[in-house]
Amino acid sequence: MTNNPIVKGKLVCVALNDSDQFEAMQAEFSEAPYKSAPTQPVLYFKPHNTWSTEGAEVEWAVTEGQPAEEMVVGASLAVVFGKECCRVSPEEALDYVGGYTLVHDFSLPEKSYYRPDIKGKCLDGSAPIGGSVVPASDIADPQALTVVTKVNGEVVNEMPMTRSVRGVAELISTISYIMTLQPGEVIAVAFPGQRASVSKGDKVTSEIAGVVSLNNQLGQ
Amino acid sequence: MTNNPIVKGKLVCVALNDSDQFEAMQAEFSEAPYKSAPTQPVLYFKPHNTWSTEGAEVEWAVTEGQPAEEMVVGASLAVVFGKECCRVSPEEALDYVGGYTLVHDFSLPEKSYYRPDIKGKCLDGSAPIGGSVVPASDIADPQALTVVTKVNGEVVNEMPMTRSVRGVAELISTISYIMTLQPGEVIAVAFPGQRASVSKGDKVTSEIAGVVSLNNQLGQ
Repeated sequence: MTNNPIVKGKLVCVALNDSDQFEAMQAEFSEAPYKSAPTQPVLYFKPHNTWSTEGAEVEWAVTEGQPAEEMVVGASLAVVFGKECCRVSPEEALDYVGGYTLVHDFSLPEKSYYRPDIKGKCLDGSAPIGGSVVPASDIADPQALTVVTKVNGEVVNEMPMTRSVRGVAELISTISYIMTLQPGEVIAVAFPGQRASVSKGDKVTSEIAGVVSLNNQLGQ
Repeated sequence: MTNNPIVKGKLVCVALNDSDQFEAMQAEFSEAPYKSAPTQPVLYFKPHNTWSTEGAEVEWAVTEGQPAEEMVVGASLAVVFGKECCRVSPEEALDYVGGYTLVHDFSLPEKSYYRPDIKGKCLDGSAPIGGSVVPASDIADPQALTVVTKVNGEVVNEMPMTRSVRGVAELISTISYIMTLQPGEVIAVAFPGQRASVSKGDKVTSEIAGVVSLNNQLGQ
């Protein structure tokens, strides 16, 4: 198992934070059992066995003894906490960020947003984090950042933080009221709603131009 | 934050593994969106900030700036892995167990089994683990164990492993195909379906008779 030197303790991911996707799902939200859109951030964890690194090969998923038919990937801006963060306001939230990096979330395609898709989300090595941590002091406004993802050199996703339902400061504040974040813990704040389909051997590169890039390749 | 010397990496909890509860929920399972009972174990994580210890006081939950009206607790037999466990059969699964212990899962009451209740499940210090780890070699058959939970000395729950939908070996096998477990990682295998309501200051004690006990008290 690959150890990642950046993340410690926990990696929290925010789902449904792409406003384009959120709008497109209104009909689905209106169905049972909820009959309305979620009013709070929808969170999931990528546990310890998923953490991987810049440059790592990502194992092709095996489910029920067979190689998976399809995998998908999304990339997100991620905040790495620099100090303990518990019940902070949005106004002070960014003071707790030590730096910014990228997360690749490789998974099985999701069939539904209702039940926690542990099986699809917790594949070994499916959450590379990196390539580096850019000090928070170098980023004047995280909302101005855009994550661009390419598969084999072709752009498959662009996620400007201006398209997020909730911004970085609001998310840090809200999550810090749910659970304490420790130094080295990571929140991946905004994946594009449409994950990109990937095949065996594909090269996946995500980048915030001039800031940080993350490169991985799918195994065979 | 309390550090727990037993658990490392991740604490995986199995939901809906009480056959009494499972039977009682058949009508709910038949509703949208699933229209049938789950066919696989339903899992959730208690992350790093939740891990606590034997004897620790458990902070009374604060939600949306106010003390919670109610908290609940369930206790479970837990396996602590002794060696790396990846894609093992039920027949060999118990060979990977280093020892057995108890987990208290304190949370907000759950309104639904559909969406991952991160807010209610991830309260700081809400997962005491212990008091000790009993070596696996001392437990001939984990399915023969019963966890009894008392609140202020009164029995509120008894969960014999014979009442679980899935046994320890089957769960280890199934989960090991979803994610690799490392030494020191923990699976809480079977909570009683009916969590017990607790109040500020309550003393919660769970015990496997003659094997291990875990004692906590709610804060004010």
